[in-house]
Amino acid sequence: MPHIAFIGLGHMGGPMAANLLKAGHSLSVFDLVPAALEAAVALGATAAPNAVHAVSHADIVISMLPASQHVESLYLGEAALMQAIPGGALLLECSTISPDTARKVHAAAQKRGIAMLDAPVSGGTAGAAAGTLTFIVGGEAATLERARPVLEAMGKNLFHAGAAGAGQVAKIANNMLLAIHMIGTAEALNLGVANGIDPKVLSDIMRVSSGGNWSLEKYNPWPGVMDGVPASRDYAGGFGVDLMLKDLGLAMEAAQASRVATPLGSTARSLYALHSGQGSGQLDFSSIQQLIKRRG
Amino acid sequence: MPHIAFIGLGHMGGPMAANLLKAGHSLSVFDLVPAALEAAVALGATAAPNAVHAVSHADIVISMLPASQHVESLYLGEAALMQAIPGGALLLECSTISPDTARKVHAAAQKRGIAMLDAPVSGGTAGAAAGTLTFIVGGEAATLERARPVLEAMGKNLFHAGAAGAGQVAKIANNMLLAIHMIGTAEALNLGVANGIDPKVLSDIMRVSSGGNWSLEKYNPWPGVMDGVPASRDYAGGFGVDLMLKDLGLAMEAAQASRVATPLGSTARSLYALHSGQGSGQLDFSSIQQLIKRRG
Amino acid sequence: MPHIAFIGLGHMGGPMAANLLKAGHSLSVFDLVPAALEAAVALGATAAPNAVHAVSHADIVISMLPASQHVESLYLGEAALMQAIPGGALLLECSTISPDTARKVHAAAQKRGIAMLDAPVSGGTAGAAAGTLTFIVGGEAATLERARPVLEAMGKNLFHAGAAGAGQVAKIANNMLLAIHMIGTAEALNLGVANGIDPKVLSDIMRVSSGGNWSLEKYNPWPGVMDGVPASRDYAGGFGVDLMLKDLGLAMEAAQASRVATPLGSTARSLYALHSGQGSGQLDFSSIQQLIKRRG
Amino acid sequence: MPHIAFIGLGHMGGPMAANLLKAGHSLSVFDLVPAALEAAVALGATAAPNAVHAVSHADIVISMLPASQHVESLYLGEAALMQAIPGGALLLECSTISPDTARKVHAAAQKRGIAMLDAPVSGGTAGAAAGTLTFIVGGEAATLERARPVLEAMGKNLFHAGAAGAGQVAKIANNMLLAIHMIGTAEALNLGVANGIDPKVLSDIMRVSSGGNWSLEKYNPWPGVMDGVPASRDYAGGFGVDLMLKDLGLAMEAAQASRVATPLGSTARSLYALHSGQGSGQLDFSSIQQLIKRRG
Repeated sequence: MPHIAFIGLGHMGGPMAANLLKAGHSLSVFDLVPAALEAAVALGATAAPNAVHAVSHADIVISMLPASQHVESLYLGEAALMQAIPGGALLLECSTISPDTARKVHAAAQKRGIAMLDAPVSGGTAGAAAGTLTFIVGGEAATLERARPVLEAMGKNLFHAGAAGAGQVAKIANNMLLAIHMIGTAEALNLGVANGIDPKVLSDIMRVSSGGNWSLEKYNPWPGVMDGVPASRDYAGGFGVDLMLKDLGLAMEAAQASRVATPLGSTARSLYALHSGQGSGQLDFSSIQQLIKRRG
Repeated sequence: MPHIAFIGLGHMGGPMAANLLKAGHSLSVFDLVPAALEAAVALGATAAPNAVHAVSHADIVISMLPASQHVESLYLGEAALMQAIPGGALLLECSTISPDTARKVHAAAQKRGIAMLDAPVSGGTAGAAAGTLTFIVGGEAATLERARPVLEAMGKNLFHAGAAGAGQVAKIANNMLLAIHMIGTAEALNLGVANGIDPKVLSDIMRVSSGGNWSLEKYNPWPGVMDGVPASRDYAGGFGVDLMLKDLGLAMEAAQASRVATPLGSTARSLYALHSGQGSGQLDFSSIQQLIKRRG
Repeated sequence: MPHIAFIGLGHMGGPMAANLLKAGHSLSVFDLVPAALEAAVALGATAAPNAVHAVSHADIVISMLPASQHVESLYLGEAALMQAIPGGALLLECSTISPDTARKVHAAAQKRGIAMLDAPVSGGTAGAAAGTLTFIVGGEAATLERARPVLEAMGKNLFHAGAAGAGQVAKIANNMLLAIHMIGTAEALNLGVANGIDPKVLSDIMRVSSGGNWSLEKYNPWPGVMDGVPASRDYAGGFGVDLMLKDLGLAMEAAQASRVATPLGSTARSLYALHSGQGSGQLDFSSIQQLIKRRG
Repeated sequence: MPHIAFIGLGHMGGPMAANLLKAGHSLSVFDLVPAALEAAVALGATAAPNAVHAVSHADIVISMLPASQHVESLYLGEAALMQAIPGGALLLECSTISPDTARKVHAAAQKRGIAMLDAPVSGGTAGAAAGTLTFIVGGEAATLERARPVLEAMGKNLFHAGAAGAGQVAKIANNMLLAIHMIGTAEALNLGVANGIDPKVLSDIMRVSSGGNWSLEKYNPWPGVMDGVPASRDYAGGFGVDLMLKDLGLAMEAAQASRVATPLGSTARSLYALHSGQGSGQLDFSSIQQLIKRRG
């Protein structure tokens, strides 16, 4: 069984590493937060004093970090982690970052003879804990086949989006679309309610009509319409406003770099920025319903 | 079997009347266009010289007209059609119009002891011909039960959205949401393609992920991704840009009257207005992909 | 000197009527609010028991009402005021209403041989009190010349925008543009401050550069940058958010009727609707700076 | 008189260098395009074989490059130009780039004891030729005083926006606001014309009313309203759509980095991206009027 180095043991990385341990892998782990490191050690991992140490004997390196700058700094910065990874190793970069950064890391990996996938996930902390994450993968098909067993120890759906960076592009395109239909759903429900319709009745009609979308199907933003979703527990838990704002920022960055128009996507970003700026950054992203709803 | 008066025999009204005739109803019909009238007569209807004549002995009156002003003028204008409808009759107003106009006609009907439903449809000309329309109904539940047999001769889904006007509100809320996720889908696909992803692969990923929506499921806007949809036949047929623009105008009118914000809905309307203004009014509404796509 | 009937003695109409009295005109006045009526009587006007009575011997009729529906109901509704105005009289409709309503009233006036102008104002309650309003006029040039002396008793600038309804169109186009550059100014200042620039320095630079506009010149929205503006007194006074929201609604109505795209205008309306919906309807419209500003 | 190194002799840099020569300065120049280099030599400059050579004996270094990546690569990339500039020299970076890149170059300059200003310009190629550019400057006040004589040889207005990077922030905030009021003006004129008003009359009214802004005052986008502007010569010349798109991209980048909302700014970027994508990238930016105008 290959030996794995795991860098970044936060809300997502921690449970992902736990699932790898559960599957019988040996892990060298590193995180800047001692408590995160200790939690992994308690489950059987070996703590490394730094990232370079963690990867130096790894067959597979997995990283799960907050943002582009952390990934860029880790692999391409002064620590020169890429130099420390053994040639021939497999690198699975699971953070959600800009396609551009992903491509830079791919290029550096290739120079060193390291096979790499950009493999951002969806499914949130619940999916990470349950081992039911979805991986959206960019890189070569053969590399994906090689990575499949270890990815399947952490998730249940693997999508191959295309070449290097394509995993990131597909993820941010998907999340931009998610933000758009969530806000659209919030607008439609608010318009209906302001005109006297019951939000549950309207949701039922639109869900099976041409307005149908994932937000209506799985994640209704109007409080009380659907059980077990954040809207029915004061928007606690779920996928936070600030995380959606970050993903929309990545989408805008990619749109600007490729000079394409995203009129709804960019308005969606501004609405999430307004909402976050009013102090709602930690609420679930379906709380955009509150911004849209007329209160006064 | 009740005798029906049918006013408005256009692209939608014509086939709807045909299905009623097929179900064995006797129909008095009226339309300003002689050819439309003759087509219905050829199927067994009796042509009336004007609308007043058509309704004067009707048990049920059905109307299917282009826009609010036609409905308002027909029922509340100088012709005073409402006065000519027998007391106790059933009025099924199937046009897509402003909730406000619908409520005015409801109020006038009520004064005359006429039971009314606003019952806009979805399903397009194909659904009208096949008798598989969806009716989204506003009015009293008892009236809906009374109307059910005749509506089921023309369609297969009946939704009761709420009180008078609620059928219109639900329909325009749904269509606003449809426009939003269609444009959002077009933006996401364009962003992906501009960054090197195959539109079919990206569609498959988003369709089963949190970006999933009716546009991806049934009506993919990128040419060649899905068979049998307008995008794969140069955007011919389907639901036209100018019809979507009209429905978005109704949604904005309702939003303005109720003073609610529709930031994505209103941007969607502006995009369809731009697209129509560039000469694409007759194309299917999924052709918004062409506006979003970078050509230069 | 011609005898004037004045209908509508609110925040704007009251001081306008006062200026006409000061100029030596005899006035018959009507308002639904007794206190408003009494205030005008105290200044020398004659109270009429209703609008019909007020206009029956008038050479000139002036009306100043809140919205389209009031104007439509007054002139074209059951009271049939238009029938009561003497043929040959001059009608000055000063409310801000939809161009469509203005044109309907024009048409009804013309049938009766009454010369009419739509003459919405800008300048606010301060301008009404000081007699320094701006009138933006639609109708025939000869009618404007006939009206000039009485308009100049209430204002100092007269613009002839064009034919019937053009006064309304020009006013709402102007106010839409005002909303757009006010929000744009708020966004630019917020972006600058968030990046460490002093709002006064940035205002000074943009004011004399290509970003220059009336908001920067006369009505800076950032608190403390400019003396004597609403932003420097907690956004009290000035032109209220709800009045701007109403004018933007009229602009959208006109855009929808003429099927044109207003991508920034419609986003501006949604932002003012959000702001109003959060309880800021009574603040000055430059308080949109508060919506845009990141608080959290 | 100080010896100047000038890097980047394009449409802007070429005439700026020419004005410095005219003022009597000695110049070492470098550009990748031989023709640009030869043109400067013909006016008296000394061509350097590369940038390092150009700066090695300079008292003042001026650079004028297309975008952030060129500036970053020039000063911070492998060529290590910053190391080649003599300690104590003055560095005037005049390109329009991201504030972030500007701050990185400032930091590198400071380490080497080089005084630096970010000094982006406005005024276009005409202003560069006439020596009437506006410089919007970020950096220390004392450095600005030291740079004043050389900047005044190329321009006539100097604004001190604030600390390092502030020149870039102020410029992109200003240009975002410019794009917003230009599009707003185009929307207002189009709305008026679609409702029967003469664009010149409407322009005159709004220009002196609360809609007033630089676009109406100096750069009317409707063809034929104003003499001598791009709109009256088929949108040739002026400030190109693609340049405005670039500046809006920088504004969005800064907004995303500082997590602020720019709902109109981001819609403006999308509209310029649509317009560019339809093949109008080389037209003047006031040609956005064409996108907004209903053609069909």
